[in-house]
Amino acid sequence: MKKYLLILLLLLLKSTVLAQLSDSAVIAGIFNNALTHFTSYDNLKYLCKNIGGRICGSETSVKAVQWSQQAFADATADTVYLQETSVRSWKRGINESATLIYGNKKIKLQVCALGGSIGTGKKGIRAKVIEVQNFEALKVLGTDKIKGKIVFFNRPTNPLHYNTYAAYGGAADQRVQGAIQASYYGGVASVSRSLTLASHDYAHTGIMRYYDSIAKIPAFAISTYGADQLSSILKNYPEAELQLISTCVEKPDTISWNVIAEIEGSEHPERIIAVGAHLDAWDNGEGAHDDGVGVVQVIEVIRLLKAIGYQLKNTIRAVQFMDEEMSQRGARTYAETAGKLKEIHIAAIETDRGGFTPFGFSFDACDSVSVSIHKWKPLFEQYGLWQWRKGYSGVDISFLKEQNVPLFALITDSQRYFDYQHAPTDVFENVNHRELQLGAASMAALIYLIDKYGL
Amino acid sequence: MKKYLLILLLLLLKSTVLAQLSDSAVIAGIFNNALTHFTSYDNLKYLCKNIGGRICGSETSVKAVQWSQQAFADATADTVYLQETSVRSWKRGINESATLIYGNKKIKLQVCALGGSIGTGKKGIRAKVIEVQNFEALKVLGTDKIKGKIVFFNRPTNPLHYNTYAAYGGAADQRVQGAIQASYYGGVASVSRSLTLASHDYAHTGIMRYYDSIAKIPAFAISTYGADQLSSILKNYPEAELQLISTCVEKPDTISWNVIAEIEGSEHPERIIAVGAHLDAWDNGEGAHDDGVGVVQVIEVIRLLKAIGYQLKNTIRAVQFMDEEMSQRGARTYAETAGKLKEIHIAAIETDRGGFTPFGFSFDACDSVSVSIHKWKPLFEQYGLWQWRKGYSGVDISFLKEQNVPLFALITDSQRYFDYQHAPTDVFENVNHRELQLGAASMAALIYLIDKYGL
Repeated sequence: MKKYLLILLLLLLKSTVLAQLSDSAVIAGIFNNALTHFTSYDNLKYLCKNIGGRICGSETSVKAVQWSQQAFADATADTVYLQETSVRSWKRGINESATLIYGNKKIKLQVCALGGSIGTGKKGIRAKVIEVQNFEALKVLGTDKIKGKIVFFNRPTNPLHYNTYAAYGGAADQRVQGAIQASYYGGVASVSRSLTLASHDYAHTGIMRYYDSIAKIPAFAISTYGADQLSSILKNYPEAELQLISTCVEKPDTISWNVIAEIEGSEHPERIIAVGAHLDAWDNGEGAHDDGVGVVQVIEVIRLLKAIGYQLKNTIRAVQFMDEEMSQRGARTYAETAGKLKEIHIAAIETDRGGFTPFGFSFDACDSVSVSIHKWKPLFEQYGLWQWRKGYSGVDISFLKEQNVPLFALITDSQRYFDYQHAPTDVFENVNHRELQLGAASMAALIYLIDKYGL
Repeated sequence: MKKYLLILLLLLLKSTVLAQLSDSAVIAGIFNNALTHFTSYDNLKYLCKNIGGRICGSETSVKAVQWSQQAFADATADTVYLQETSVRSWKRGINESATLIYGNKKIKLQVCALGGSIGTGKKGIRAKVIEVQNFEALKVLGTDKIKGKIVFFNRPTNPLHYNTYAAYGGAADQRVQGAIQASYYGGVASVSRSLTLASHDYAHTGIMRYYDSIAKIPAFAISTYGADQLSSILKNYPEAELQLISTCVEKPDTISWNVIAEIEGSEHPERIIAVGAHLDAWDNGEGAHDDGVGVVQVIEVIRLLKAIGYQLKNTIRAVQFMDEEMSQRGARTYAETAGKLKEIHIAAIETDRGGFTPFGFSFDACDSVSVSIHKWKPLFEQYGLWQWRKGYSGVDISFLKEQNVPLFALITDSQRYFDYQHAPTDVFENVNHRELQLGAASMAALIYLIDKYGL
């Protein structure tokens, strides 16, 4: 009996090894194809240089939607369609500026309006500045000391985190909630230090929020260089005044679209593996790493999965969400529609961490999924993917969580991401072809495995 | 009895955990210090912008030696001294150029003389071009078809390797041996495709060799963009002629120096842990990634190990080798001297893979060293170091191998390295502060562990 068991075990082991070998060959095919093709990089160049920044509701976002449909068609997707969604329509004004007046000097500081902010009017706002590190400090100072002033939030992004997303997360309250907190104590505008570890003179924009119950005041980001300069001058000239100008406006909501492309499943066309990125990008750069990279990677995933000639059992759906940066309306619409149509998503993968060398995947799923994932790990190691960690896996696909969809996010090297994110430095030139393609290939390989074995 | 054994085991386990915790805290201190200090980055800026390219035997290499001594002193090294070494003294000429003449057209192609090449004379060499992929092809063509022509080696660096050093290694014969092989069959000059995966118009230089028994002919590198252009034109105009000009010369050998700095060991000052980089760099760029990064990292290792206040048992010796790029004369002198003086190196670590995110260490050592290393692995994972692989660990320290010194090399992300190596793009702006500092901290942490526990 023992002998038969042993033989059975050996046979099982052999078939597993064979299956692994064959998976390894398919995955090598995906990576080899990715590393020798430049369509994706050319697509990124077009999106960055010919379309550029494309915040939702803008004319360029409409151009991006049109371009993307064609790019998916060129990647030989079986189906390409649009999914209508309502979006906000905020527009940056021209000539936004900050002038610091102190002693008998005037200097310009590099600022930009935060996304969703009201403008200052053409004449701007001129007031004294009060510098704080956090909201607690505002509470301590109280309305008396804050009223009528510009509140300057200057807590640096913490460099001690290896993972720069943790550093970003630890400082983001100043940008997102700064205007609410400043206004609550009578501040007339908020200026927050850019959320970057880079010491440079570029202001990083990003979404900010208002509460309906608290008066709206204009909100700005200031470059880290400018923030250091402002802080230093305020020490010697506490009476210095800052003149802020921005003419941004929020227009009525408008219509936009998620762009969706599919490869139809040969066995279970009703079962969907989704891979998503966001098509919108802030207007002050080219939206290269955030998230032009993701946009062209999901197109590339379609091309790669078609190119390797493997017959997919399930439907692969690439989704380019609109309006990630402001309110994730595209993502909400997508999840709501999926819920209404009772669509079956067997997995959703998000790529929104820049075109840097991929390190692995995070996953937000039940324990049985962890088991599958850990079985597949060795297949990815030679391509540098070694991090498989349980945790948050991206904002756009997060709305599918309540439908119990296993969620994944591509993890990339985070060291340089916030040098570029939401800044004028987020341009095509700062993306490397190989790093971009390794990310696309990693997702295509994961999709291949999920398609073949399930989760 | 069993009970006592269990208690003993628990006690042992506890003390191991405590030791690990304390190591973990020391290592956190090293990384935290590195990520909040900018001396190293400022040093790199100075070396790149105020000194620049510094090939051995050049005036700038002497400036680099002077500067480095001061930088080590500023990093509070206990001792700083120079080690004399003979070096080659090759000098690039001015206005090197390549003009392709075909039909009734003339176009310029981006080339540079390879290091160690003879010049063409001011009038240059004008000849027809024969394109080949490898040395085998030369053999097949034979002297009849090659004699009097310029041999154009155009085998691309293979993009399919994840590790770009493997790609580089697979194409480097064309650059290093091309002139020998071309001359053997009567070629009048060699032009080899730049050793990079980037498609751009910068020529990448690097060392080439001659055999005494084979006539020396001038050797050039051509940009990948230029190589593609040349290849494409040759298809339609096989009679096209290339005019090559370079006025480089090799002067008599001269004297230069390795720069060495030490922290004296408190218990075993005679036992040395060396950490090395090379101070020389090609003249056509700023030598930022290759190897300005290593130069400032070994200075930073000294600063960090002093800053954490841990009393080192062994002597830590930072070495900046001269002449890595041409003949590794500095490294040979160093190893010879160590041998003569019967110095005891307990380990040597090299950093010469650019200032990219560190991935781990390679090690070239006996199996007992592998055991130590694998025990320490978990201490490095949170800093992204996961690759610990046995293998070649750097050219400068390789001369210590015959003295049975365990050798280590810092492994960094290789995807972008060859976009910059030996090219005008190898400038300060392409180095990121955090990536640079993570590398320095990784080496300081490894040295701390070797110092504390041995290997």
